[in-house]
Amino acid sequence: MNAYDILYRKRQGACLTPEEIGFLIQGHLQGHVPDYQIAAWLMAVCLQGMDFDETLALTRQMRDSGQKLAWSVPGKITLDKHSTGGVGDKTTLVVIPALAACGVPVLKMSGRGLGHSGGTVDKLEAIPGFRTTLSVPEALAQVQRTGAVLIGQSAELAPADKKLYALRDVTATVDCIPLIASSIMSKKLASGAQRILLDVKVGNGGFLPAYEQAERLAQTCVAIGAAEGVATRAVLSRMDTPLGYAVGNALEVREAVQFLLNPRQAEPALRTLCLELIAQGLEMTGVVPDVPAGRMEAERALTSGAAAAKFAEIVATQGGPATCQDILDSLPQAPITHMVRAPLAGTVQQIDARAIGLLARDMGAGRIVKDDPIDLTAGITLSVTVQQTVRAGDPLATLHVRAQDQDHIAEFERRLLDACTIEQVGSAPASAPPDPVIAVLG
Amino acid sequence: MNAYDILYRKRQGACLTPEEIGFLIQGHLQGHVPDYQIAAWLMAVCLQGMDFDETLALTRQMRDSGQKLAWSVPGKITLDKHSTGGVGDKTTLVVIPALAACGVPVLKMSGRGLGHSGGTVDKLEAIPGFRTTLSVPEALAQVQRTGAVLIGQSAELAPADKKLYALRDVTATVDCIPLIASSIMSKKLASGAQRILLDVKVGNGGFLPAYEQAERLAQTCVAIGAAEGVATRAVLSRMDTPLGYAVGNALEVREAVQFLLNPRQAEPALRTLCLELIAQGLEMTGVVPDVPAGRMEAERALTSGAAAAKFAEIVATQGGPATCQDILDSLPQAPITHMVRAPLAGTVQQIDARAIGLLARDMGAGRIVKDDPIDLTAGITLSVTVQQTVRAGDPLATLHVRAQDQDHIAEFERRLLDACTIEQVGSAPASAPPDPVIAVLG
Repeated sequence: MNAYDILYRKRQGACLTPEEIGFLIQGHLQGHVPDYQIAAWLMAVCLQGMDFDETLALTRQMRDSGQKLAWSVPGKITLDKHSTGGVGDKTTLVVIPALAACGVPVLKMSGRGLGHSGGTVDKLEAIPGFRTTLSVPEALAQVQRTGAVLIGQSAELAPADKKLYALRDVTATVDCIPLIASSIMSKKLASGAQRILLDVKVGNGGFLPAYEQAERLAQTCVAIGAAEGVATRAVLSRMDTPLGYAVGNALEVREAVQFLLNPRQAEPALRTLCLELIAQGLEMTGVVPDVPAGRMEAERALTSGAAAAKFAEIVATQGGPATCQDILDSLPQAPITHMVRAPLAGTVQQIDARAIGLLARDMGAGRIVKDDPIDLTAGITLSVTVQQTVRAGDPLATLHVRAQDQDHIAEFERRLLDACTIEQVGSAPASAPPDPVIAVLG
Repeated sequence: MNAYDILYRKRQGACLTPEEIGFLIQGHLQGHVPDYQIAAWLMAVCLQGMDFDETLALTRQMRDSGQKLAWSVPGKITLDKHSTGGVGDKTTLVVIPALAACGVPVLKMSGRGLGHSGGTVDKLEAIPGFRTTLSVPEALAQVQRTGAVLIGQSAELAPADKKLYALRDVTATVDCIPLIASSIMSKKLASGAQRILLDVKVGNGGFLPAYEQAERLAQTCVAIGAAEGVATRAVLSRMDTPLGYAVGNALEVREAVQFLLNPRQAEPALRTLCLELIAQGLEMTGVVPDVPAGRMEAERALTSGAAAAKFAEIVATQGGPATCQDILDSLPQAPITHMVRAPLAGTVQQIDARAIGLLARDMGAGRIVKDDPIDLTAGITLSVTVQQTVRAGDPLATLHVRAQDQDHIAEFERRLLDACTIEQVGSAPASAPPDPVIAVLG
């Protein structure tokens, strides 16, 4: 077996055997299959596809390339949750403490933001003192004690995926369904939870704009989970509008904490999606008999303050402030804020998630390339949601601006206005905002 | 402009601009576009194709990546000749001296063998003392003095092609028409001849088994030459059977020298192809008014001994023996020869070029990977050609075997017999062997 012949076969559209995929992945990790052969293979995969057996074989190879966690909590079913990423997506900060408050143990490893999309680790690091770099034994101890832990992705798990992803990221081979599915599932399977709950974003604020692609990703992940005996479910959710009001790291933590403290005032789409994810997680882990019961239980966990208390407990255990109010008080704030107002009266028809994500990135909240420094205070808080009517001069959003961007405020304002489509009153009647939950698979 | 976006565009099937192709090729040569990005681009090119403008832009970038020779001979039109490579292809050793004997100046840079196919530089190095590594000024001086020079490919010319080829060779991206065409033409254009004559092989002994592919390569090369104002012509020739009787380095030189000394006894297909190439070269450079006149002139150059004398002059000038007889006497010979005889009476229907090439390679005449050592004496001399009738026990071929392969002779004999298809007399009547020249383009 040699890499050349394997590449040639994939170039010709053949399906590779598990042994061939193992040869590439293990060879790459061990250093005798060089980056350039893997890069050529990745491009061939993007253009010729991979069938399910290949995708499963790749997932297994990457899962088995490093440490595999084996943990359990007596009498409970453990869960892991993953979002494919979007603009303003702070669901993890609400869903994980709510699930933990209902008795579902969660060890959650998250990533960092890149491009227009944010990452939970960056958000958590906006909380002064919060440690996202617990060792695996520390994390396992905490999940036993507190019921949940929120950390960065461990380099010990699925190192072959990390190496492969780094190469995809520089060879224009990121957005390929089987590669995405095996990347997600290899990490989730290595972290050893008994159930996997996925939030697959559909729309230009995620990385899969088309429903068909998102559905195919969700189906593939669910099938991989089934093949490995780890029940996996995917919620397909709308990501054409930012989720919630805040976009930017400290700003999103603030919104999440305020949500936990006062769930009835949360932005409706964010609230609906969080409730759905919590309900699905509760049903999957047998805490409730069905999803409607899960929704009621989720409501209870939020309105009772149990989820807020659990979040504070997690944060305190990981080195941050002890209460939700202390977290709010401690979050860093941008030196400059600038209010953007509606230029005309009408209905907010659209808030372009991708444009808002890119604006937040360029304001310092995100990265163009990995390892770029970010500003945790920078970002945007919207004052409106889609289908809301505004009068001319009403607040549309507040820009949270770094000192060095003083001179760019006018440009940021223009970009924010360009991202919002307001139709004059009368031209189109306001309707209910679309349900953020499109479908549930698995 | 950045490599990622360019890769993404090619992945999506877009046509790249000359500036984008320049960004990749110059960036690769200068070291800031890494191998893995080029590897991904090459695979995308293999699967998405390149249109003519892209192919031309790539050719120009590679041509311009190093030294470009500018040379001329007063009152003459200079020519370069290239073969896409095959099994037993010693045409260069006959065609170049014949053209030079007719007054066509030729500076010919050649490559080494790889896989089942041989290389002229290896063959020339079988001649004791022959220097294939003249510097460019030495080569230019010799072509002015002797009318022709035969050397290895200069690393100063088209270094970007060399770098790209090394990567194609390990990423299964070799057999892609636009990449092959730009590789060939970039080197030929950089070596500065006024006319280019290509011998494009069709059949399993070359690397393009199908006529359609070979024709497309020929058309692309001819069009690139036209776009650069360098008249280019391509002879498409049959390579399903070894060309001539000998396969192996010293053995092929011996056959070529014997051809020059006694052209009427040359193997018919080799003779026909050489005459065609010489005739086309003479017509292209204005030595004769048309190709039929070129064939007569080619016959004259061969039968008069002028081509043989010119070959001896070239060899002597480059450090080898002074006469053709001295060359024959000095060629190294294998320590063991073994005659393979026809197992039955019949007609030789087929001699599989690829199988013979792989056998010669495994006997030591060729390489599996670049820089493998080779044995200049090893190889095969066939005793028959296709459509010839044999009696049982008639010689089919002689194996020229290295001392270390003493124990492999039975295996070599079996492989040789497997490569030859003999149909019993009566089952299929012998017919004339097919014309080795299939078409001439340009």
